[in-house]
Amino acid sequence: MGFLTMKTLHSVWSEMREKFAHVAPECETIPVEASCGRFASEDIFAKEEAPAFDRSCVDGYAIISRDTFGATESIPCFLKILSAARMGEATSVDIKSGEAVYVPTGAQIPASSDAVVMVEYCEELSSDTVAVNHAVAPNINIIYKGDDCRPGDLLITRGTRITPIHIGIMIAAGISRLLVYKPISCAVVSTGDELVGVGDALMPGCIRDVNTHMIGAELEAYDCRVVSKRLVMDRFDEIKSAIQDALVKADFVVISGGTSVGDKDYTFQAIESIEDGSVFAHGLAVKPGKPTILASVGGKPVFGLPGQCVSAYIVYKAIVQYYLDILRGSSAGIGGEPHLVATLTANVHSAPGKLTFQAVSLRYDDSRFFAEPLYGKSGLISHLTDSDGLIMIDEKSEGLDAGEMVDVVRL
Amino acid sequence: MGFLTMKTLHSVWSEMREKFAHVAPECETIPVEASCGRFASEDIFAKEEAPAFDRSCVDGYAIISRDTFGATESIPCFLKILSAARMGEATSVDIKSGEAVYVPTGAQIPASSDAVVMVEYCEELSSDTVAVNHAVAPNINIIYKGDDCRPGDLLITRGTRITPIHIGIMIAAGISRLLVYKPISCAVVSTGDELVGVGDALMPGCIRDVNTHMIGAELEAYDCRVVSKRLVMDRFDEIKSAIQDALVKADFVVISGGTSVGDKDYTFQAIESIEDGSVFAHGLAVKPGKPTILASVGGKPVFGLPGQCVSAYIVYKAIVQYYLDILRGSSAGIGGEPHLVATLTANVHSAPGKLTFQAVSLRYDDSRFFAEPLYGKSGLISHLTDSDGLIMIDEKSEGLDAGEMVDVVRL
Repeated sequence: MGFLTMKTLHSVWSEMREKFAHVAPECETIPVEASCGRFASEDIFAKEEAPAFDRSCVDGYAIISRDTFGATESIPCFLKILSAARMGEATSVDIKSGEAVYVPTGAQIPASSDAVVMVEYCEELSSDTVAVNHAVAPNINIIYKGDDCRPGDLLITRGTRITPIHIGIMIAAGISRLLVYKPISCAVVSTGDELVGVGDALMPGCIRDVNTHMIGAELEAYDCRVVSKRLVMDRFDEIKSAIQDALVKADFVVISGGTSVGDKDYTFQAIESIEDGSVFAHGLAVKPGKPTILASVGGKPVFGLPGQCVSAYIVYKAIVQYYLDILRGSSAGIGGEPHLVATLTANVHSAPGKLTFQAVSLRYDDSRFFAEPLYGKSGLISHLTDSDGLIMIDEKSEGLDAGEMVDVVRL
Repeated sequence: MGFLTMKTLHSVWSEMREKFAHVAPECETIPVEASCGRFASEDIFAKEEAPAFDRSCVDGYAIISRDTFGATESIPCFLKILSAARMGEATSVDIKSGEAVYVPTGAQIPASSDAVVMVEYCEELSSDTVAVNHAVAPNINIIYKGDDCRPGDLLITRGTRITPIHIGIMIAAGISRLLVYKPISCAVVSTGDELVGVGDALMPGCIRDVNTHMIGAELEAYDCRVVSKRLVMDRFDEIKSAIQDALVKADFVVISGGTSVGDKDYTFQAIESIEDGSVFAHGLAVKPGKPTILASVGGKPVFGLPGQCVSAYIVYKAIVQYYLDILRGSSAGIGGEPHLVATLTANVHSAPGKLTFQAVSLRYDDSRFFAEPLYGKSGLISHLTDSDGLIMIDEKSEGLDAGEMVDVVRL
C-alpha cells in the first residue's frame, strides 16, 4: 500500500486554473425572462437609456421650483394650470414661470419644469388655477432621463448568476435576449461493493449510496446537466469503463469512492490506464478530504471524491464548484465571498499542514451569530444535516480560539 | 382622491395567517433524487436504520481494545489474524481476545470487536500474525449501527426546502419517495398605460414593464408555477377581466400598479367589483410600499403591489413570500432568520409609524461585514442592483445609529 502525496487546496486551485481555464463552455442566447439562475457568459451592457425621458415620481404638479419659494399654507403661490400630462405619451406642453402642469406618477414632465410638487400640497381653485402651499427645491420628485442606465453602461459582468433583479435591470435597459452558458454536462459515478441504490433491497453489510444523488443534486442546482448517474462495484474494469462511457457523454466526470490507496481502490489506476488520462493530484491537504484525485482525460476533468459522504460533499464544494467557477468566470462558490460571520463559541483544533473544514451549528442571538463547532464522523450524513455551515481553517493555523470571528459558508 | 388607511406589516401578516393558513396546497409524491428545491409537505421520518451494522471508519484491524493497551512501537502486541471482513457482506467471523480481523473502510466489524486500529499502526508478520504498535481506546474508528438514524427519527420538518444534503440523509434512511407541495400556481398582471413589453417598440413617454418578469422570476425561484403573465392598460374593465381570467387558472394573483388612490388607480375598485372580492388592506405602513392592496376573491388571495419597481420588489418579499411561507409552513422568507449581520456605517433615519426597508451595500473587511446605506428612488431598478441587501427598521424606531449591528436580508 502506497501513501498519498498531498497537495494544498490553493495549489490545486492554481493547477486547475492553468489546465482548465482555457476551455470555454458552450453558450446559448435565451430570452431575458427565462434567464434566472443561469450564468452570464459575457459582460452585459445597456442598450437603451432608462428612463428615456424625465418622469415624475409622484402625482402632482410639474412647476418651476423658483415659483414656489416662500410658499406656505398661509401664503400659497398661485399657478396657471395648463393641460395635464398623460401616462404613456410624450408631454408636448411646456411651462414658463407662473404655470403648472398636472403629472401623474411616472408621466413625462414638461421640458422647462425642474420639480414636481405633490398633489397633497396643492389645491385646485378652479379649472385653470392651482394654489401651492409648499416650497420645493429644484430636482425634487423627478427621475431624470438615464437615471437607471445609459446605452453602454455595464450592467452585469461575465460569470454573474442571474437573479430576478438582474432580469429587471436588463429589461429596463432594453435587453430582450442574452448570452449565457449552457448547462455544463457531467456524469456522476459512485464505486463501492457495499453500495446499494435508492429503492433497492438493502443486503447485509451494505449501505445506501448517498453520494451519487447528493452530488448530482448539487451539480444540477449549480446549473450543470447530469447526463448519467452510475453505481459500480470496486473492480478495475468496471470503474475504467464507467469513466470512459461517462466521458463520451459528459464534459467532466465526478467519481466518488476508490480514491485512496487501499487494495480495492482502483480509481487512480483506472484513470491512468485510459489513453490521455493523467492524474495531477492524488491526495489533498484538506481535512476531511485527503483521498481526492484530480485528473485530466483527453483534456476533460475527472474528479475523484472520497467515498465518505461528508468528505465527498466538502471536496465537491472546494474542488468541483471551484472548477465550474473557473469555467464561468464566477465567484459564487467557496473561493468567493463568505456568507456570514459569526463568533466562535469554543476552541477548535485543526490539523497543521491541512486546511480544515470545521462543521458548525449557528445560533442567532441579539444581532449576532454564534458558531458552535460540531464533531462527527465523515461517514455520517447526519453530521451534515446537523450542521448549518462550515468554517475553513488555514493549513498554517493550529486552530482557532473561542470568541474569534469566523467566516461561515452556509450549508 | 381618498387616502390610504395604513396597516402595519405585522397586522397584515396575522390577517393573512387567519384568512389563508387553512388552505392546504396540493401535494404530490416524487422520487427523492428529484426533490431538490421543493418544499416538504409533511414531516419526514427515517424508515431504516443507518447504518444497519457496525462499520469501520478506516482500513485496519478490528480488535478487542483491551488487547492493545500498553502496545507501543518498541513493545507491540501480537494478534492472530482471522479471515478478513469483506465489503458489502455480513461479517460472520467473530473474535476473542488475542485475535484480529482485517476490515477495509466501511466493512462490518465482528460482533465482539470494540475498536479498529488503523493499518498504519500494524505490521503483518506472517499470514496469521499481526503486530500492533499502538493502543486504541474502546469505540475508536467505529460507526455504530443507527449512528446516522433509526427508524422513526424525524429527519425533515414540513415546510423545509429540500437541499442536496437532505436528499443524502433521506436516501441513507431508506426513503425513496416523499410528499412535497406541488408548485403553487399564480398569475402576474401589471397595469400601466406607460408600460411596454420586452422586445416591443419603446414609444415616447413609455417605459419597459420590469415588474411582470422580475416578480415572475422570483415566484418561479420560490417553487411557484407562473401560469400567466399579462400587461394591461389602466382601465377598470381591463384590470377587472385580467384578474378574473387569472383567478380561473391560478391559485393566487399578483398585480402591480394601480394600487394607490389616484384618478387612474383602478385595482381596488376592480377587485371590489368582482363577486366574492374583498380588500382587507389598502395601504401598508411600510416604506417603500405604502400603496399595497391585500384582497381575497372567492377565498383566493389577490396581492396588489405598488407599480414602482423597488416598492413592488420589497412588498413581494414582505407579503407574497410570507403568504407562501404560511401555506407551506416554511420560514424561508423575510419573516424567517436573518441572512447575516453587519455593522452599519452611517446613521439611518426612518419613518416613524412605518416599517422602513433600507437598502444597503455590503463590504467585507477583516472578518466583519459593513452595511452602507444607499439612497435611491423607488422607481429606479438600478437602486436594487446597486444594493446587496435590505435592513428592516421597526415602525417604533426613529432610525439607527452608525456602528449598530443590523440584520441584513440578502438580495
